[in-house]
Amino acid sequence: MAAAREHGVRVVLVGHARRVRDLLRGHDALGEIPIVHAEDALAMDEGALAGWRRPRSSVAIACHLIRRGHAAALVSAGSTGGVVATSRLRLRGQPGVMRPALAVVLPTRPRPTVLLDAGATADAKPEMLVQFATLGTAYARIRLGVAAPRVGLLTIGEEAGKGNKLTRRAHELLSGDLPGVDFIGNLEGGDLLAGAVDVVVTDGFTGNVALKTVEGAVRMAVTEMRAAIGSGLLARAATLLQRRQLRRLRDRLDPETHGGGVLLGLNGTVVIAHGASRAPAISSACVLARDLAAGRIVEQIGEGLAATRPNRFSRRPHPDPDPGPSPDPSDL
Amino acid sequence: MAAAREHGVRVVLVGHARRVRDLLRGHDALGEIPIVHAEDALAMDEGALAGWRRPRSSVAIACHLIRRGHAAALVSAGSTGGVVATSRLRLRGQPGVMRPALAVVLPTRPRPTVLLDAGATADAKPEMLVQFATLGTAYARIRLGVAAPRVGLLTIGEEAGKGNKLTRRAHELLSGDLPGVDFIGNLEGGDLLAGAVDVVVTDGFTGNVALKTVEGAVRMAVTEMRAAIGSGLLARAATLLQRRQLRRLRDRLDPETHGGGVLLGLNGTVVIAHGASRAPAISSACVLARDLAAGRIVEQIGEGLAATRPNRFSRRPHPDPDPGPSPDPSDL
Repeated sequence: MAAAREHGVRVVLVGHARRVRDLLRGHDALGEIPIVHAEDALAMDEGALAGWRRPRSSVAIACHLIRRGHAAALVSAGSTGGVVATSRLRLRGQPGVMRPALAVVLPTRPRPTVLLDAGATADAKPEMLVQFATLGTAYARIRLGVAAPRVGLLTIGEEAGKGNKLTRRAHELLSGDLPGVDFIGNLEGGDLLAGAVDVVVTDGFTGNVALKTVEGAVRMAVTEMRAAIGSGLLARAATLLQRRQLRRLRDRLDPETHGGGVLLGLNGTVVIAHGASRAPAISSACVLARDLAAGRIVEQIGEGLAATRPNRFSRRPHPDPDPGPSPDPSDL
Repeated sequence: MAAAREHGVRVVLVGHARRVRDLLRGHDALGEIPIVHAEDALAMDEGALAGWRRPRSSVAIACHLIRRGHAAALVSAGSTGGVVATSRLRLRGQPGVMRPALAVVLPTRPRPTVLLDAGATADAKPEMLVQFATLGTAYARIRLGVAAPRVGLLTIGEEAGKGNKLTRRAHELLSGDLPGVDFIGNLEGGDLLAGAVDVVVTDGFTGNVALKTVEGAVRMAVTEMRAAIGSGLLARAATLLQRRQLRRLRDRLDPETHGGGVLLGLNGTVVIAHGASRAPAISSACVLARDLAAGRIVEQIGEGLAATRPNRFSRRPHPDPDPGPSPDPSDL
């Protein structure tokens, strides 16, 4: 309702019709927002099998609306695993995308940083990480408004030869000619929050561990800090004032509170809000979903991938009438 | 000198003899501490090739002393990559150990947590993670004084079926009968600093990313917290007092400052102190090296691994005269 009334987002509610209707009635909004009935719902502990087990869940029905063209994007605050599995199965990957990636935004300074994959594809291949760079570039452009996002690869050790097999090969591929991707090199875990790049690329396993580790570390630091401040005599006077600031800070730094993720690479936009989201967070998620759809994120990703495909010239049906200056043979 | 004078550690200094002698003379300690000459030294940016490239580095010479039985352990504040590579090559893995692991201690509450591998083995196999559980158990016992350390596996999602291929298989193996290892299950990144286990097992890539991410997150949280506190009028008065506390807190939470790592699984104990260590940190590292050698860490690991080897009974040269109660055949 907040998204529809305050931001003009055209919302369709998918869920158990009677219950949704009761809730809308309580807010004097009956008839204002269309409802699509779904008899089932994903449980919060639902994992990778949810996609198969619950063909009539609200998420599955919402995917169906997208496939039919009745909706452009899906917003859910359900279990991340369940939403990822259901939308992968129901929306399918967009052409050329090997695997989807979950993108989250880290609240770094001076600008936020997109981290992907935060958990959709646990066992990634080097070629998938290269695609994630294209997915993240399109996302950072639309979400953060950065014209030419800088992309870094999360690994161990900054030199090209360091890392594991996956990242060494991915580094090689990313260092090649990759139109539309501004790859600036390797990053370490300590740089994740330094705001040095716009997009951090990693596999879903490492990305999820890193994201959760940030949350845990910030939580611990804030707790310890409170204890340290509270123990000083003079400081005690300032406690009330600071507690509020510390809480605000923790909320800002905690990616879970901060915003959920967006699943990229499917035939439709999927925004996954945090399960504890309240009205403003859900409303923001709806605005984000609308903006991503309006920014043609799916098409942008498709075009980005087409441009990076090695055999892109042979596939072009009509050759460019002006191919530009031909390359100097001495450069080859 | 501090380790020798204050803690009675029998130290041998390995380095460029003339320079070390000059330094000792400046502290009136000439003749008090034996010196072994090494004409070369590892540079701080030295990586995995250092082991081959610098056979006469101080670290290589120190390893030689261990192999000859002239020393029990090695302490270095050199480049982690260089020390790991050199000691792997010169000390070799102890029998039965597939790969060494770098163990670091995270300053969690109520008790510290051992994290391994923090970067020695970037591409690990499930069987290696199982060995790391044994290595970490021996280490936690001696270093933290925990009789029966609880071991957790770092992965994504707490259920057994979650994770990537590596951790799913490692979970299966760790859940089997593993004498001497108290495996309690999966952990997520957010639990890393929760102090819920004594030992966290992971591959060297994930472990290094997680460790560095903790450092980066704590650094960011402290910086932001300072800014938040500094902006209040009342709080400003308390600033000086708090800055010291915040710095102390950051030092406590920053694993780099906190203590460096220990390389486990080699024929000798290797303690890697942080490059910025001052005298107290180096002294602590020497005491730790002495204690690990005194606690027979190498032998403990050897016995632990022998006990977990599936064919351990067939290998025993002299059968136990009292094999204890024979197993009930109905249990088999």
